[in-house]
Amino acid sequence: MVKVTINEDLRKERTTCTFNLEELTNFLDDGVENTKKRRKLEDFFLNDPRFKDEVPLEYLSHQEHYEQAIKKSCIFLTKIKEWEEISNSHTLQIYTDIWSSGIDTAIIKQSLPFAVHVVMFLPALIGNGTPEQIEKWVERAFKSAILGTYAQTELGHGTFIRGLETTCTYDPATEHFILNSPTLTSYKWWPGGLGHSCNYAIVLAQLYTQGINQGIHPFIVQLRDSETWMPMPGIKIGEIGSKMGMNSANNGYLAFDNVRLPRMHMLMKNSKVHKDGTYEKSPHEKLTYGTMILVRVLIVRTLVTTNLMKSATIAVRYSAVRRQSELKLGEREPQILDYQTQQYKLFPVIAICLAYKFAAKWLWDKYLLVKTQLEQGDLNQLPELHAMACCLKAVGSTDAAIGVTTCRLACGGHGYMNCSNLPNIYALITATETYEGENTVLLLQTARLLMKSYQVVLSGNGSVSTTLSYLKNYNNLKRLNWITTLECMSDAFFQVAGSKIEDCYFTIKRLVDSGFSQEDAWNQTSIKLTQASEAHCRAFVISAYIKTVIENTTLSAELKFVLTQLGQLICAHWILNRLGDFLQYSNLKPNNVYSVQTLLEDCLKHIRPNAVGLVDSFDIRDEILDSTLGSYDGNVYERLIEGANKSPLNKEPVNRSFELYLKPFLKSNM
Amino acid sequence: MVKVTINEDLRKERTTCTFNLEELTNFLDDGVENTKKRRKLEDFFLNDPRFKDEVPLEYLSHQEHYEQAIKKSCIFLTKIKEWEEISNSHTLQIYTDIWSSGIDTAIIKQSLPFAVHVVMFLPALIGNGTPEQIEKWVERAFKSAILGTYAQTELGHGTFIRGLETTCTYDPATEHFILNSPTLTSYKWWPGGLGHSCNYAIVLAQLYTQGINQGIHPFIVQLRDSETWMPMPGIKIGEIGSKMGMNSANNGYLAFDNVRLPRMHMLMKNSKVHKDGTYEKSPHEKLTYGTMILVRVLIVRTLVTTNLMKSATIAVRYSAVRRQSELKLGEREPQILDYQTQQYKLFPVIAICLAYKFAAKWLWDKYLLVKTQLEQGDLNQLPELHAMACCLKAVGSTDAAIGVTTCRLACGGHGYMNCSNLPNIYALITATETYEGENTVLLLQTARLLMKSYQVVLSGNGSVSTTLSYLKNYNNLKRLNWITTLECMSDAFFQVAGSKIEDCYFTIKRLVDSGFSQEDAWNQTSIKLTQASEAHCRAFVISAYIKTVIENTTLSAELKFVLTQLGQLICAHWILNRLGDFLQYSNLKPNNVYSVQTLLEDCLKHIRPNAVGLVDSFDIRDEILDSTLGSYDGNVYERLIEGANKSPLNKEPVNRSFELYLKPFLKSNM
Repeated sequence: MVKVTINEDLRKERTTCTFNLEELTNFLDDGVENTKKRRKLEDFFLNDPRFKDEVPLEYLSHQEHYEQAIKKSCIFLTKIKEWEEISNSHTLQIYTDIWSSGIDTAIIKQSLPFAVHVVMFLPALIGNGTPEQIEKWVERAFKSAILGTYAQTELGHGTFIRGLETTCTYDPATEHFILNSPTLTSYKWWPGGLGHSCNYAIVLAQLYTQGINQGIHPFIVQLRDSETWMPMPGIKIGEIGSKMGMNSANNGYLAFDNVRLPRMHMLMKNSKVHKDGTYEKSPHEKLTYGTMILVRVLIVRTLVTTNLMKSATIAVRYSAVRRQSELKLGEREPQILDYQTQQYKLFPVIAICLAYKFAAKWLWDKYLLVKTQLEQGDLNQLPELHAMACCLKAVGSTDAAIGVTTCRLACGGHGYMNCSNLPNIYALITATETYEGENTVLLLQTARLLMKSYQVVLSGNGSVSTTLSYLKNYNNLKRLNWITTLECMSDAFFQVAGSKIEDCYFTIKRLVDSGFSQEDAWNQTSIKLTQASEAHCRAFVISAYIKTVIENTTLSAELKFVLTQLGQLICAHWILNRLGDFLQYSNLKPNNVYSVQTLLEDCLKHIRPNAVGLVDSFDIRDEILDSTLGSYDGNVYERLIEGANKSPLNKEPVNRSFELYLKPFLKSNM
Repeated sequence: MVKVTINEDLRKERTTCTFNLEELTNFLDDGVENTKKRRKLEDFFLNDPRFKDEVPLEYLSHQEHYEQAIKKSCIFLTKIKEWEEISNSHTLQIYTDIWSSGIDTAIIKQSLPFAVHVVMFLPALIGNGTPEQIEKWVERAFKSAILGTYAQTELGHGTFIRGLETTCTYDPATEHFILNSPTLTSYKWWPGGLGHSCNYAIVLAQLYTQGINQGIHPFIVQLRDSETWMPMPGIKIGEIGSKMGMNSANNGYLAFDNVRLPRMHMLMKNSKVHKDGTYEKSPHEKLTYGTMILVRVLIVRTLVTTNLMKSATIAVRYSAVRRQSELKLGEREPQILDYQTQQYKLFPVIAICLAYKFAAKWLWDKYLLVKTQLEQGDLNQLPELHAMACCLKAVGSTDAAIGVTTCRLACGGHGYMNCSNLPNIYALITATETYEGENTVLLLQTARLLMKSYQVVLSGNGSVSTTLSYLKNYNNLKRLNWITTLECMSDAFFQVAGSKIEDCYFTIKRLVDSGFSQEDAWNQTSIKLTQASEAHCRAFVISAYIKTVIENTTLSAELKFVLTQLGQLICAHWILNRLGDFLQYSNLKPNNVYSVQTLLEDCLKHIRPNAVGLVDSFDIRDEILDSTLGSYDGNVYERLIEGANKSPLNKEPVNRSFELYLKPFLKSNM
């Protein structure tokens, strides 16, 4: 067992903190009550001894790993229901609380096989089912009496939903649909839990009725027999195989050979197929749009921020404990956190943790607002929500993947060990760069609204959404002199974003004017378009940060001071990383660059004494960090050795491969 | 079995190529003969059926994986000896050929447990042993009658060698040394193969004799009994545990409890301890320096270029096969390689493959030259070699890790699957960012020579090395107008590097003048110093590219034309990524940015028809790519399904976890 004394360096770090940790924790939780609630939730799940692993999963075979995940998942889901009763909360609320605290990955490191059941199968059933369909399936699904997944993506199609190839043809004679997978590329591929862990799926397929293709529609399909778990007739099913991470998600494949479904297995809340095969189109297709955005919002709100915070905590604490080299001859080796280059790697990550936390809060509030509006048929703010969810998911997940990598590399070789947890955190976060909308595709989605809005502003006809109102005045934000205040720097971000949007708009126009089709012109401008969306996103994140921190009247002066330094740091860091843009489009002149570099270096110095306090205030329990390098007590080296000795290879002094292979080999060479 | 017909899209791509593939292949191999030799070597190793896996290693447990690696390694090492006889080559030559072709990872995906035996144990033994010591151990080591590792790094010390804590104290009474691990942090940690696969090690320890610490010296230590493989008395040994990758490298830990060594176990070619304990210092410490540089040179020459080439091949071929979305309504879905954003991700990777290949060739030639000079006592070019090996290893491995990631993400979800091989390639290459000199530390090493050389140029006293001669004239490279020729752009890289070096020099000077110590001034300038080293490295890479391609008189006009486009692409890409530097320090003015952006976009268009041809000419066999997405025939989807069905979980329709956990859980919810 590792000793419980606190590492002396970490202990000292905790005495230099200039602000009240609990105040920041409460602020990040959005209130004292939420902090209390979160801690209770963590106690309830993480104190359960059934979740402790005897052998870390990295040492298991793929199959053992899966079996362990199913075992734990059953306990986990049961506990969620218990918590529902204890806390009187809704299931989805409990899940988002669990995701944003990171409890799920503390228990099942490589993803819950039933996550899609909760996030997609259930919402899709509720969103697309008729009242009878809801009655038939939703309660059983809520109780986990059936387990479902959402089968949209195919081997050959992810991004382009209209290109899906699975067919579902209505036969009025029998009042049944017939599902088929006509090609190799039409195999369903990727749905979480599909491999061996579900007995139902919502399947997206091309609907054919009366000889006409009516496009993609959702069907509910039983995949496995509830008693034997054998695949149903005509169903070919399995897992897609080993992945970079998320190996307990049990992503699966699925193919249909003339699978017959009763008519009522098409989810008919919106479009319908009548008994005789007549197709009735939905009058309000956009209404189902809201559910699609939810997952992207949740990625920003939970995965981006939680994984950044975990990584920052691990790397900062390790850097306070680790001592290396000499700054001055004969002096004690310094903590590596005292090296400017190390601060430059880690402190911007602390700052972006907060920046995305605040941006995600705005996005979540917006989502809740638009959801309410949609229920009343008001689609007004949907495009803005969609555009912001797209770019925040894209830029946020990219920044998070880079931030996590920076933290891992900042821990040197030890960060490469699985017991640091940094490799697993990376595998989880980099997956979000691809799933639920590939990031480049999402940036181009945002760009559509940017181009449309620029056109509106230019023409003077119509209005643009709040987050794009700067398009009306970014050119008037000129000041006489560049100063490194948050306000001036924030303006510069809008100048850059506005100018890049303008450049794209006129580039496309020029190409179209010179004879290119709109589509070709768009494709030939698409590098720039993705960059414009990114600039727009960063300008938004900075402004959300300022609104959240600077315009806040309840924060203590001490905390506001520290958060302002972090805001300055993130501005300076992002400006210097994209300096060309700022020199071209903002008030920043070449002779001002020095001031930004100095601001950056000063911020690093100022943040130094608060670095450990800041990550402590993220308040992430050791079970969630799950890291030899990052635990609260800082007993890094003891934990590393303890970690090594968990390897089954270390249970015997000599592995059997010696007698089998190595000894004969060595003898033959003597 | 996957069909052997070539995917139609790939077949077409191969008809549009404008240059002779074999010419480029030969050029990259440095001659027709080398291509032939490489292909023979590949045949010899890769056609051996004993290296085929029944179950891909991702599905094995950690222990099974290790045992499989040992089994294969014994065959592998035996075949190397066979090849030595067949080909009449030197061992080290064979190993570098194997590494630069990627044969090793085709056979043992997550690193050879005996790599350190060849790259470090043997060279260190030869470099540091007396003739008697060499006689005693080197031949046995060469024959693999003993297997060794190089135990330098400790749990608490990697970068700072002087800080190592293992002690070795001479006892003149018994004429023995006594090895001890006085602290937890003094455990040896990381040496490859140390865990369970070696019986010898060269151990670096603090030498104490006659009560005086004489610093770090090398000792040869037997770790395990040759007959039983049990650890020798006083030796605590094991593996360090599961890692992000390289899980067959069997990195180990090692601690000593009064381990006694005969005096002749200190390697005494240089410094000596006499019988009575008298210490005799080496007159030529720097002579052993050359071996240390070798590994860094090899990283650039083999790992950086090979892994980039593998990734580029996989992603480009997949992007030619993959079709998605609509560019124009009603038209066939385009190959994703036709999207500008996809070209922007992949074509620069093709270009940097070549750029690092050419830079590595320079570095290797330089290494061979300096090695010869060192043998004659000439240390003149050693600092330049050291500085260039440091920055090329640092910038090259960073660029490679980013390039591999870009390729993986460009393959969407399928790139996340282990059967794409991209996750494993990433795990291998990102490790090189840390080992054999952490990248930030290496950039600061290079910066030392940059500062020294700038001082020399400024004072006018003394000379600087060839790669730094631009410090004398970078300020005179002004032209009237910016043009996007390779020459003008290359000059701009030198202007940027020179200006950044100058800025660092005067920043340090200012700080020292204002009262800071030299060390504090250095630390406070270290962000800028790393950036100056990076700029220096990139300027060198660009100039090496131009020298290799443009100044080459034997290349055909067709090939030169394509390589020139790739050179322009890399210049444009790097300039736009660091645009702020170029606007500040080079002839590039804001109104020229447009021309660089246009050059970039034009290069993408021009390279498009040659993209598949270029990666084909890298001539990487399917066994080495080991990728469902990247094989020569492009049967991506067939291979993905075949890959999935290799999962042991798919061998049974129902996993036992259903009866054990899932069924009781579902029943309890009904």
